Order: sequence, then C-alpha cells, then structure tokens
Amino acid sequence: MKVFGIDPGSERTGFGCVDSDGRRHRLVRCGAVRVEAASPFPERLGVIYRALADEIDRCRPDCVAIENLFYSTNVRSALKLGHARGVAMLAAVERGVPVIEYTPAEIKRAVVGYGRAEKSQVQQMVKLLLGLDRVPSPHDAADALAVAICHLHQSGGLAGTVNGAAIPSCRAKGPAAPGSWRRYRPPTR
Amino acid sequence: MKVFGIDPGSERTGFGCVDSDGRRHRLVRCGAVRVEAASPFPERLGVIYRALADEIDRCRPDCVAIENLFYSTNVRSALKLGHARGVAMLAAVERGVPVIEYTPAEIKRAVVGYGRAEKSQVQQMVKLLLGLDRVPSPHDAADALAVAICHLHQSGGLAGTVNGAAIPSCRAKGPAAPGSWRRYRPPTR
Repeated sequence: MKVFGIDPGSERTGFGCVDSDGRRHRLVRCGAVRVEAASPFPERLGVIYRALADEIDRCRPDCVAIENLFYSTNVRSALKLGHARGVAMLAAVERGVPVIEYTPAEIKRAVVGYGRAEKSQVQQMVKLLLGLDRVPSPHDAADALAVAICHLHQSGGLAGTVNGAAIPSCRAKGPAAPGSWRRYRPPTR
Repeated sequence: MKVFGIDPGSERTGFGCVDSDGRRHRLVRCGAVRVEAASPFPERLGVIYRALADEIDRCRPDCVAIENLFYSTNVRSALKLGHARGVAMLAAVERGVPVIEYTPAEIKRAVVGYGRAEKSQVQQMVKLLLGLDRVPSPHDAADALAVAICHLHQSGGLAGTVNGAAIPSCRAKGPAAPGSWRRYRPPTR
C-alpha cells in the first residue's frame, strides 16, 4: 500500500510518499512545494496544484492523506490556508485518488502515540520508522510523511480504509452530472 | 470585453459572464454550482472546479473577477470558503485567464455607487444594467454578475486592467519551473 501525505500551506506545502508491506515502511519520495510570496496569489495556487499533480502522477498512490486544521491564528490566515488545501485536495480528486483527512492530534497519536507530542518528536519517529539516517528536510516534507504514516497506522495498511471501515470514495466521476448545478437562461429582452 | 464573475461558496458558487462594448453590458450566461452537502468534501471541490472550468471554456472570458473576503463568522467557515475559492481561482489560472479580486464593498461601490448598499439594491442594479426583465436567479448568480460588472466599471472596459493599471498576469506558464520546489532525495539506507 502506497500513501501520499500532504502538509498544506500557502507558502510551503510538504509532500511525502510512503510504501508499506504492512510491516515495514519505505520512503518513496518527498519534498516541499515553495511558492514565491511575491508572485500573484492565483498563480501561487497554480504552482501548488501542478507540482502536487505531477508528484501524484509519479508516485501513483492508493490514497492521499492530508492534514486537517480546524483552528488558525486568525480568519485571514485560515482563508489563505483553505485555498492551498483546496487545490491540494483537488490534485488528488482529479486523479481519482481517495482523500482522507487527519487532525494534527490524530497524526501525533498515530505516529508517536501521544496527541500532544512535540513536532521534533514526530520528525524523529518519521526518521526511525522509515529507516533514514537523518530527519527528512525541509520539515514540511517530514510533516507530510507523518500524515502518510498516520494513515498507514490507522488503516492497518489497507488502502481506502480507516480502522477497517471504507473511506467514502472520492474518485472522480468524470464531468459533473448536469443536474448537480443549475444554469440560468437569459430572459428574452 | 468579456468578464466572468464568481461568487464563491462551499455549498453554492455563483457564476455569471457579462459582455460589454464599453457602453452597454450584455448577459452571456449565468448560474450557480450547487454541491450536495452530504457528499464528501473533496468530491464537492471537484464538482465546483469542473463546473467552473466547463463554464469558462464555454464563455472564453478576457478575465475572471472573484469576490474577496477578509472576514468570516468564524475560522472554520473561513477555511471551508477558502477551499472553494481556491479551486474556483485555479479553474481560471489553469486556463490562462487573469484573475482579479474585489471586496464586497468595492463591488457595491462600483455597481450601486455606495459601499454599504443592501444586497437587494445590488441585484436590482444588475437587472437594470443588463436590461433583464427580472433579477437573475438564484441570487448567487446575480451576485456573480455584480462582480463581473464591478470589474467592467473599475477597468473602464479594458480587459486586464484596473483603473488603467495592468493586472499582474496570472496566465498559466505551463509546468512549474524545477527550481520552484525542492525535492528531497532519500539518503542511502
């Protein structure tokens, strides 16, 4: 089972793919998409989307696990983060890959065994579980790998399941059915 | 000049395209993308993206104008709205169409002449300016048309400009340059 983890951010989005045979985990590839803060915001979203789409195409994961946040320092930064998360999830959905979300506490609990673990503890466990000689850098990549490992631990190594239950399918179903949105016809003038 | 307006939302996203010769505005088409609240969130983003991408392909606008929000009732709803806005903007960016953002006050000022106008006043002005016999329905479509008209008024009918100044180009530049994100190579085990 191959899981692609994403740690979204409006300036840096970490990604990391982990392959597992159910006993041992192996790092496939990881990294971070950095966008220039000076470039127009819509263009930054395009860079994040295309980079992740490209990585998902290369890795061909069974599912994508993404960090979920329900809090933020303020509404403005929550809005910005939402944009990045939206295009990151879309990169998976458009490729027919199921997406599953985990809160930071769930990730820490699944990787370190303690929901309030320090970031550095999580990164050390990522290094240990993947048999690496150092913590993956940049730290966003290590965080993304932790999300992927979280899903492996939560699902017992079964793609598309969490604690044995099937993940609601997010497979792309082709163009949206005509009934799913309404068009307004201009009245005669 | 043809402008495609978007009023984003996580459950309903309005869209509306307006064509103008600099004196008279004409409604091209409008409507709203509705997503089932019961369907998985990533799938809902896919529906919004594909519906808007399809509409942009049909309308072939010179630019996309989208409502910008810097406030929200709470962080959770800001995050949700951010996702919808992110995929809406991406639909334009991926088609090489410039995106420009306007705050609700800017839209009201440009359409009604008063930044604190009521929603119903904005909708009546949309009906009047487009020469329609009724307010476009659903109201999200009317709101999206107001964003498009706002850009027409702000830019003086010139695509890709606001108050005479060029909009920073958001044209898609093909795949992101390799230097724009870093990949981490697994160390030897």
